[in-house]
Amino acid sequence: MRELQLLGAISELLTPASASTLKSVGDDAAVSLHSGPIATSVDQTVAGVHADMGHFTHEDFGWRSVATAISDLAAMGAVPAEVLLALALPVDTSEADARSLLAGADAAAVASGARIIGGDIVSSPTLSAAVTVIGTQQEEQQFTTRDGACAGDLVGVTGDLGASAAGLIQLRAGVTDELSLRHRRPTPRTLEGQALARAGVSSMIDISDGIATDAGHLGRASSVRLLIDLPSLPIRPEVEEAASRAGVDPLTLAACGGEDFELLFTATREVAEVIGTSIAGTQVSWIGSVVEGEAGTDLAEKNLTGWEHGA
Amino acid sequence: MRELQLLGAISELLTPASASTLKSVGDDAAVSLHSGPIATSVDQTVAGVHADMGHFTHEDFGWRSVATAISDLAAMGAVPAEVLLALALPVDTSEADARSLLAGADAAAVASGARIIGGDIVSSPTLSAAVTVIGTQQEEQQFTTRDGACAGDLVGVTGDLGASAAGLIQLRAGVTDELSLRHRRPTPRTLEGQALARAGVSSMIDISDGIATDAGHLGRASSVRLLIDLPSLPIRPEVEEAASRAGVDPLTLAACGGEDFELLFTATREVAEVIGTSIAGTQVSWIGSVVEGEAGTDLAEKNLTGWEHGA
Repeated sequence: MRELQLLGAISELLTPASASTLKSVGDDAAVSLHSGPIATSVDQTVAGVHADMGHFTHEDFGWRSVATAISDLAAMGAVPAEVLLALALPVDTSEADARSLLAGADAAAVASGARIIGGDIVSSPTLSAAVTVIGTQQEEQQFTTRDGACAGDLVGVTGDLGASAAGLIQLRAGVTDELSLRHRRPTPRTLEGQALARAGVSSMIDISDGIATDAGHLGRASSVRLLIDLPSLPIRPEVEEAASRAGVDPLTLAACGGEDFELLFTATREVAEVIGTSIAGTQVSWIGSVVEGEAGTDLAEKNLTGWEHGA
Repeated sequence: MRELQLLGAISELLTPASASTLKSVGDDAAVSLHSGPIATSVDQTVAGVHADMGHFTHEDFGWRSVATAISDLAAMGAVPAEVLLALALPVDTSEADARSLLAGADAAAVASGARIIGGDIVSSPTLSAAVTVIGTQQEEQQFTTRDGACAGDLVGVTGDLGASAAGLIQLRAGVTDELSLRHRRPTPRTLEGQALARAGVSSMIDISDGIATDAGHLGRASSVRLLIDLPSLPIRPEVEEAASRAGVDPLTLAACGGEDFELLFTATREVAEVIGTSIAGTQVSWIGSVVEGEAGTDLAEKNLTGWEHGA
């Protein structure tokens, strides 16, 4: 389909913008007014790298591309406000597929309280989306960054781990179940991130590459070492079953599978006690502690290999 | 090269952020504080579609991707402030090429007074960049949009047209000259856009698809008809020569070549008289007028064919 046809259809396909957006889709730029600091981030989803189109519908692809970008705002405790959607579509993309992609993207934005206010559509040999998100601060609440972890803090994580990787195993085995949805339609932990920020966690990051890698990012940003107790990682029985059928250690999926988009955070013991075992209705697990030492992370002594995820 | 290696090198490669950026590269999101409305836009450059890598260096590619995104801010009369750079690199991209690309992107941002404050780097079969730009308002000066053209206004354009298309002709002929630079390293008309906004132009758009298409966008947004007098289009003698050698009508290059990133605008006769024949040191040509009628544009009666540009 031609770019102009799709651009013409966009305003009718997208949920109308909110009051903070003074000018939405249709000019050289969108215009917005936010009274305080804003958090901005961009995240890309590339077909064949982050999303196997043998398993993803175009609607899944649109959802995933926006949801993973919003996950970065969740990790700041930000309130998602606006989304800019840059789409690169192969020339043989049908109008129906393009519309489905936009519908999935719009749905993911709206599910987190945000709106798509602009974008760009070009042709490319490779289907991809680059999604820019703008989030605002909760009232009187600073953004939570990666660099505030202190020795003595505890390490917590929302939800459960390994489900996206296990979902991909299911999809490759031809099974469409709740796990496969966790892979195709990740849900950013937006409300959880906001509640954790209000509770006063000292640092936070979302788990996109796998906790092994992302705990290292957080440790290096904070110049501390995160000790993660692998047996404490929250793993659902269904993930263990899928891992077992595939002959993979479930801990490998949980630690290295990536794409779970749960939140990893640190908190003083006092804040951790107040948070307890759930936040905003989602389970919280305490999986380690912060110590001084070479910046980074230790995952006990387990040798985790055998799982590769997208770059 | 590996994504993490490049990410580690980014802070040293980029020009440090400005005071309005509270947190730059290195966290889940960048944080900024702008006191008034902001303009946001995203623009993509795809290798093989918008940039033939047989003619573009990686540094050219980085420059072009940021410059064309900033051009959208110029068309709003905005002051470029911040850039988010989403890069998709083939796995065989060398570290030297990746660094050159970043250097070109940084240089284009800095040349317009903006800074790269965040981004995303992934691998992809196709080299591409999605660049998000954030611009602020000039003091007490509203953004100029596409929808303010009124019947009776005159139509103006900055600089000259067809140079990018002529530059591509030169590159294909193996010639590297000033015209070829216009293709590989477009310069957004940022100061011109700001000055035109202050002068009180009634509508503005940047010329990315070619004046034939972009005048249509402006006419439809304003619900008026733009009559463009083709013989008045500003064309440099070098463009006429390149067109002649290639057997193409120079007017076709000027009207349909695209990628010139000049500014097309409308103004009342009073404002047009004040502007005269130059703005911020750049030539201004008056090339048509605005009338009531079916929204869109008329390009006299000339039949312009034979030139194809990227989608």
